[in-house]
Amino acid sequence: MSLDRPERRVRARRWRGIASSAVALALAVTAAAKPVTVNDLLAQSPAADWRKPDPENTLYLELASGRVVIELAPRVAPLHVANIKALARAHYFDGLAIVRVQDDYVVQWADPKHERPLPPGVHDVAAEFDAAPAARADFQPLPIRDVYAPQVGFLDGFPAARDPHTGAVWLAHCYGMVGVGRDDPPESDGSEMYAVIGHAPRQLDRNVALVGRVLSGVERLSSLPRGSGEMGFYVGAEAPVPIRAVRVAADVPVAERTPVEVLRTDSATFRAVFAQRRDRHESWFKHNPGRIELCNVPLPVRTGGSL
Amino acid sequence: MSLDRPERRVRARRWRGIASSAVALALAVTAAAKPVTVNDLLAQSPAADWRKPDPENTLYLELASGRVVIELAPRVAPLHVANIKALARAHYFDGLAIVRVQDDYVVQWADPKHERPLPPGVHDVAAEFDAAPAARADFQPLPIRDVYAPQVGFLDGFPAARDPHTGAVWLAHCYGMVGVGRDDPPESDGSEMYAVIGHAPRQLDRNVALVGRVLSGVERLSSLPRGSGEMGFYVGAEAPVPIRAVRVAADVPVAERTPVEVLRTDSATFRAVFAQRRDRHESWFKHNPGRIELCNVPLPVRTGGSL
Repeated sequence: MSLDRPERRVRARRWRGIASSAVALALAVTAAAKPVTVNDLLAQSPAADWRKPDPENTLYLELASGRVVIELAPRVAPLHVANIKALARAHYFDGLAIVRVQDDYVVQWADPKHERPLPPGVHDVAAEFDAAPAARADFQPLPIRDVYAPQVGFLDGFPAARDPHTGAVWLAHCYGMVGVGRDDPPESDGSEMYAVIGHAPRQLDRNVALVGRVLSGVERLSSLPRGSGEMGFYVGAEAPVPIRAVRVAADVPVAERTPVEVLRTDSATFRAVFAQRRDRHESWFKHNPGRIELCNVPLPVRTGGSL
Repeated sequence: MSLDRPERRVRARRWRGIASSAVALALAVTAAAKPVTVNDLLAQSPAADWRKPDPENTLYLELASGRVVIELAPRVAPLHVANIKALARAHYFDGLAIVRVQDDYVVQWADPKHERPLPPGVHDVAAEFDAAPAARADFQPLPIRDVYAPQVGFLDGFPAARDPHTGAVWLAHCYGMVGVGRDDPPESDGSEMYAVIGHAPRQLDRNVALVGRVLSGVERLSSLPRGSGEMGFYVGAEAPVPIRAVRVAADVPVAERTPVEVLRTDSATFRAVFAQRRDRHESWFKHNPGRIELCNVPLPVRTGGSL
């Protein structure tokens, strides 16, 4: 049975059949003749709708496969972020490794031998499960439901949740979020970090300090071989993935920095992207969900611009 | 600054700091002196709490890295499942490839050249977004909230949702679920399949036919290199990942089958696992979420037993 040309074209089209999660490609046809794609929205967005993360609070995790860019959250977890920056500036992480990759959960990096001394000034700090109180007022609620928290939205561009009774605000364990492993009782020195690479483990919210988010290169973490040991640790002949270096972007020569821009969550463009993703008006969608989960809200990042 | 032994031990312990999502390792201390780990629950479970998926509705996706075992859902999407089994039995997929790996979204396999003829008897079938009506009565609701659907639970062991007003039941796009790409208007022949490898894209529920779930080997899909083309397609020098074969397990000699058992979602053991995962009584948890999302409910699978 051979395929004639029309059917071949039909089958080629089918590759687009589940394309709709890509920020870049959603066809959206709305009654008000708004831009038809999220790409259009981003392309038409004013420069003021984008922000350049502070190099002083941007971390470069350098692997053989390339760079992972992490935005830190100094207003959320100031003590942990200070530790992490001190560790990076002492080149503590250089030559250490990714020691754990657990499918649908986390990638974790640390000292595989537990022997490297901490640099002067880096000590265990207490839990920073909730954002520092000074940051609370800037929580931006979103009109969406959530399974785990009474209110969700964004804080400083990070997915976050809020308890309206206490005013507490905390970051949410969405895909790509970065945190710090801790002891029990809760304290940590920032030397063991992890990134979420699976369905959001929201049960960890308020149980471990989140300190930032991967802005680019998360696939360099999520595509790593899974460890076969308990909890995804590399064991036996599985070689931990070497870390070439971790640097604070501000310490890297300007010409070697990655030009990253993040869409402001308080911008009109972001609100339009959010609305398009919640209500799917594309003809492909036969059932408009009309709802969206916090961790499915796109947080567009673009690279390739100027610094 | 050197580390003395106690501190080294403390730091070693920290690797367990975000271990709590692993089904195998959750320490649970409950008031009623129930088993302390999920592993205990599974180890103590009666044999009757487990089921062996029907080989006639189990698919083996054979890659160079090993086997991916998929349980099909014939009562949910009978037409699609029939097509997929006919394709497998005609060896249609052998030598085809994984053509798309999009981070935090899906892995998709198909004919990279769109030229292989379909075997006799395989034609486009209409949408099967909702489960066939005969299966509706077996939906098992869970007492949990959901962002996307009025009611969620399980159907035939698959994560599912239900509309109490219409009685419609459908499968949910959780991590590891397997579906079939489609055209617009909705129809598909089953020749382009995908698996979810990221945060659940629940907006696809009722918009594309889900046909099953990966029972083992999902990491062989989720750790593949991401494609750099639009929507994660492999382009340029990126070689698609060859598919050695796709077989219906019933057609594979018994000695070569993978012995898989799945915890029954209507078992007492499953209810205990669910309760432990919703209410986190482990001492490590300082904030008991008291809630759980459908796609975070563990669906334990064990291999290594008899066939």
